[in-house]
Amino acid sequence: MSVRSPIAALAAGPRTLSGEASHHLCRVLRLREGDRFVAFDPAQLVEADAVIVLASPTAVRVEIGATRPADVVALAPLVLVYGLAKGDKVDSVVRDATELGATHIIIARTARAVAKVDGDRASTKVDRWRRIAEQAARQSGRADPPAIDGVLDWNDALEAAAKEASARYCLWENATDPLGPHLSAVVANKGSLAFAVGPEGGLTEGEVEEARVAGFAPVSLGRFILRTETVAAAVLGAVRILTVP
Amino acid sequence: MSVRSPIAALAAGPRTLSGEASHHLCRVLRLREGDRFVAFDPAQLVEADAVIVLASPTAVRVEIGATRPADVVALAPLVLVYGLAKGDKVDSVVRDATELGATHIIIARTARAVAKVDGDRASTKVDRWRRIAEQAARQSGRADPPAIDGVLDWNDALEAAAKEASARYCLWENATDPLGPHLSAVVANKGSLAFAVGPEGGLTEGEVEEARVAGFAPVSLGRFILRTETVAAAVLGAVRILTVP
Repeated sequence: MSVRSPIAALAAGPRTLSGEASHHLCRVLRLREGDRFVAFDPAQLVEADAVIVLASPTAVRVEIGATRPADVVALAPLVLVYGLAKGDKVDSVVRDATELGATHIIIARTARAVAKVDGDRASTKVDRWRRIAEQAARQSGRADPPAIDGVLDWNDALEAAAKEASARYCLWENATDPLGPHLSAVVANKGSLAFAVGPEGGLTEGEVEEARVAGFAPVSLGRFILRTETVAAAVLGAVRILTVP
Repeated sequence: MSVRSPIAALAAGPRTLSGEASHHLCRVLRLREGDRFVAFDPAQLVEADAVIVLASPTAVRVEIGATRPADVVALAPLVLVYGLAKGDKVDSVVRDATELGATHIIIARTARAVAKVDGDRASTKVDRWRRIAEQAARQSGRADPPAIDGVLDWNDALEAAAKEASARYCLWENATDPLGPHLSAVVANKGSLAFAVGPEGGLTEGEVEEARVAGFAPVSLGRFILRTETVAAAVLGAVRILTVP
């Protein structure tokens, strides 16, 4: 697979890159003068072949070829509603979900969450999660980082997800209906999907009922109890494995 | 789902438990006198209903009912060969793989691994991974923690896995054959499975060829590049979701 790096406002022609883009090319990807790579622009969803003309960790000069539509983008909408959990678990869920192709991650407040985040602290957190998603998209060669929203009330988060995805599931440890058969059917039809995952303390029965009302069928991943971050990786991993052409 | 806790040498009758088991019941699960739980014995693969007679964080007394075969055990063999990566990534892969139902985890040495572990340090590490697997099994209510072996040479690890699993896949970023269709077919037949996952630096072409010779077909998870620990969670998560009855 060719090396990929993001360049904002991508257009054909010569270009001197910013410090951040230069660092990624020279330090992270270790490219040198004459090396070729694929430049992509997450905002325009385009990409282009490019070659390093002058390598410097602070100001790389590149020659960019003609742009074309980006071909490494997520396909059908894949929305994750994630109940706010302890400190850094959200960071790792955002990273995993971005690698695994989520198109929208909505962080939600729930009754049993250990962490409470409101007001200014919430918007600082959301900025941080967006940066993590951008970085994870870059590292996985994905042209389009997922949209990140939060911190919303559980109900508002479910409603937002329902607008984007026609097949919707709420992972719940007391559910008896297994997710697998549903997933195989949706994936075969290339349908849009949303998953709601509770925090480590679990969802209340009321929250599961709210999910049901918003069209999220309660489903089970079996009898072993999973940590909340493992649930997200397992579910999105299964979608990815079943959808890769 | 009922609360589950491991008790060694499980047998019907009254019993005073060790400090560790008492701590798990009283502090972690917060059970009190009169509370019921399911006791399970990972070594015998049996379980029994039990009730707390006297709660104390250091010496809980319980009354154990008749034993029966444990019903929360992994089903078909599910083997993970994992190329040694940086420090604590193995810890988190062992934890995830245990929750997701792996029956055997084999840690292997590869050419591009950042970490080199040999001799006494290797056996200390393996002891640590076994403890992590036991703890993860307990927390997920799983009666049978996976066997953990290592640190083996890549080839030896592949051969050991090949003895246990008839369908075998090596996850490789340059493979073009997608894993999904293979997996759906194997799972429909309830077959045994083994996956080989390289370290963060990737596998060499020689290592992929060795895997192919040992019957591991190189397969792809698609064009996004995944971190090595995400690969393990995604693959085992997909198996679990497709196999839960």
